[in-house]
Amino acid sequence: MADRLEEFRRFRERMNDRILAAGNLEIKRFFALDTRTYEAGALPVKTKELLGLVASLVLRCDDCITYHVIRCKEEGVTDEELLETFSVGLVVGGSIVIPHLRRAVDMMDRLNAGEAPPSDAPSSAASGPAPHAGAEHGR
Amino acid sequence: MADRLEEFRRFRERMNDRILAAGNLEIKRFFALDTRTYEAGALPVKTKELLGLVASLVLRCDDCITYHVIRCKEEGVTDEELLETFSVGLVVGGSIVIPHLRRAVDMMDRLNAGEAPPSDAPSSAASGPAPHAGAEHGR
Amino acid sequence: MADRLEEFRRFRERMNDRILAAGNLEIKRFFALDTRTYEAGALPVKTKELLGLVASLVLRCDDCITYHVIRCKEEGVTDEELLETFSVGLVVGGSIVIPHLRRAVDMMDRLNAGEAPPSDAPSSAASGPAPHAGAEHGR
Amino acid sequence: MADRLEEFRRFRERMNDRILAAGNLEIKRFFALDTRTYEAGALPVKTKELLGLVASLVLRCDDCITYHVIRCKEEGVTDEELLETFSVGLVVGGSIVIPHLRRAVDMMDRLNAGEAPPSDAPSSAASGPAPHAGAEHGR
Amino acid sequence: MADRLEEFRRFRERMNDRILAAGNLEIKRFFALDTRTYEAGALPVKTKELLGLVASLVLRCDDCITYHVIRCKEEGVTDEELLETFSVGLVVGGSIVIPHLRRAVDMMDRLNAGEAPPSDAPSSAASGPAPHAGAEHGR
Amino acid sequence: MADRLEEFRRFRERMNDRILAAGNLEIKRFFALDTRTYEAGALPVKTKELLGLVASLVLRCDDCITYHVIRCKEEGVTDEELLETFSVGLVVGGSIVIPHLRRAVDMMDRLNAGEAPPSDAPSSAASGPAPHAGAEHGR
Repeated sequence: MADRLEEFRRFRERMNDRILAAGNLEIKRFFALDTRTYEAGALPVKTKELLGLVASLVLRCDDCITYHVIRCKEEGVTDEELLETFSVGLVVGGSIVIPHLRRAVDMMDRLNAGEAPPSDAPSSAASGPAPHAGAEHGR
Repeated sequence: MADRLEEFRRFRERMNDRILAAGNLEIKRFFALDTRTYEAGALPVKTKELLGLVASLVLRCDDCITYHVIRCKEEGVTDEELLETFSVGLVVGGSIVIPHLRRAVDMMDRLNAGEAPPSDAPSSAASGPAPHAGAEHGR
Repeated sequence: MADRLEEFRRFRERMNDRILAAGNLEIKRFFALDTRTYEAGALPVKTKELLGLVASLVLRCDDCITYHVIRCKEEGVTDEELLETFSVGLVVGGSIVIPHLRRAVDMMDRLNAGEAPPSDAPSSAASGPAPHAGAEHGR
Repeated sequence: MADRLEEFRRFRERMNDRILAAGNLEIKRFFALDTRTYEAGALPVKTKELLGLVASLVLRCDDCITYHVIRCKEEGVTDEELLETFSVGLVVGGSIVIPHLRRAVDMMDRLNAGEAPPSDAPSSAASGPAPHAGAEHGR
Repeated sequence: MADRLEEFRRFRERMNDRILAAGNLEIKRFFALDTRTYEAGALPVKTKELLGLVASLVLRCDDCITYHVIRCKEEGVTDEELLETFSVGLVVGGSIVIPHLRRAVDMMDRLNAGEAPPSDAPSSAASGPAPHAGAEHGR
Repeated sequence: MADRLEEFRRFRERMNDRILAAGNLEIKRFFALDTRTYEAGALPVKTKELLGLVASLVLRCDDCITYHVIRCKEEGVTDEELLETFSVGLVVGGSIVIPHLRRAVDMMDRLNAGEAPPSDAPSSAASGPAPHAGAEHGR
């Protein structure tokens, strides 16, 4: 799992750099907009990460769920808060969400057990404008 | 629009009563579970309603969005907070969300203008266990 | 509602005829294939209509749900069987299915009350190969 | 129908103006990005509109389909080309797409019959950067 | 593949136990409701499993498809019946379903070839209330 | 990766042959229809492949994306054209598309680097009616 997380991190970072270097302006702007959307505003970063997490759950995207669980832990979200967010996603999205819920809880447990999160996952100290694009687009 | 809101309310309430009286235990339990999921826990009701709203946006269900916008206003969510929640839904879900975003902002404006929300929409004082099932399953 | 059902029927029939006359062979073949798929085989027509109904519910298509509820009633599906099919759709698809469930139960009630179903809806006697394409593609 | 098209146009324009004036920067940037994405690049505008149309079909968004059918006609797309685009959407997306296909063909026919398209729909002459945001975000 | 099935079974069972022990009441109730929904009622277990299978196919969830194919075989569903269920899912859901159809047919073949199904998959003798929650939530 | 592409190709070909031999007529006809839909008509093959690609992107099916990227390269689609197609899919479908976008760009790069595409992928010379069904249903 640590290996899978590390592999996930490396592929994500390499491809984000690759995509941003590809010269398509619309894709580049979308990535910048995606980063901005989770910055603090009227709602705190923590709430926005919970919103990104529940949206990822009901749309059933494992990579997106992994990213937002990591970010939520960095923002100090507790297990109880994560589980309640999962319960909203499960009730809105139905039993089809269950396989993704299993993997989400497993990820939560591993992060709690001290397994290294992807080493370049944006730390909460860096939750402002991203200094390094590859680190921000984790979904 | 006031008429449409009123028609929405009446149909919703009538059919919720009808469905709960139909004698299918699984459906009945699902409705009870749906109500419980948005009650205060580790996360406050307000945050849970925002989660329900963003999930409804990315899954593109107008009735569900209407319900959660009404509930969010009852919980004191500001326009700025609603708009930031919409922005997360728009970025996660893409331009396909735009027609629903238009209707969501229109609903927000009408509620702000003092148009009567569905008269039996659960008031924030009644956000505990529902005394009347028809009032709770607004989505 | 009778008017809405009648309007639904007329638009559906007119557009099916229009589409089949448009000269696009792939669309024409798809329509023929769609009709064949619900004919009796190893599974009886009734079971296939239940399958079409639950698939329409979890994909949240009102027109498709209306069509299959009408067809199920024609095939002698009871209210209890319909409600159990709805319960599977609700649990698999989640609360986002609820607005469609309301309209599906309302349709079931109206058909039970003797409201004329769309007059050209395929009767169970005509559940073999369709003599008239417009009548079959109700979804 | 002419009325419905006119109503669609007015609501769309009014709400686009309202949303852009709401002061949420991320939503505003998303709308600008959405407009840019369909401008000529390595692919001509016509092909990009066909791409937007087929994506709208398989995601089953009537407002988005209406918008792109209007834009396709403005770009000189023929009925045969539209029907082939519909056939790709139908085969990829399945029979659940059929109700949307009916409305899409009906829209194509009405535009061919000379029914006024929404009067502010972006004309092909204005397919460059939008002078008026309300006119561009038709989906 | 036997290994993959075994790995699937172990992860599923371990995580179901973990999730049920996590103390979130809504998630726990959802799991109990999910189990009940497939028990015999007006419709036999076999029909309900076919409903769960076609819903899983059109929503394109491999884990859910695997679970319901195993359950269908346990309930005595024949290959012809499975293939007809797949054909309804394919026609309703479109070509996007094909990759999942391939894996579903492969699973059917392996079960027919006598490859051990997950050893704790609920046998048809245990299709009443689950004695062990981990065994039931296979999706 | 070459191995994964080769494994993808073998499983796809084996299962397509298996499914076509299974004797279900509706599935067989669907596969034939799927092949026909991408043949030249009013729109050239290249445009149809771009339509299939963007539909696969917004529906988030990696196998389908892989297939259409390979087919697009065979039809002479340039990287700039692929990236613009990706940008339409990203803007319509939202950030939930990003993980699939990463894998799509990676596939494009590997094909450019001369990595053997699946050896039986239909060459552009064979873009007429398929001599061998297994080779055509790549999604």
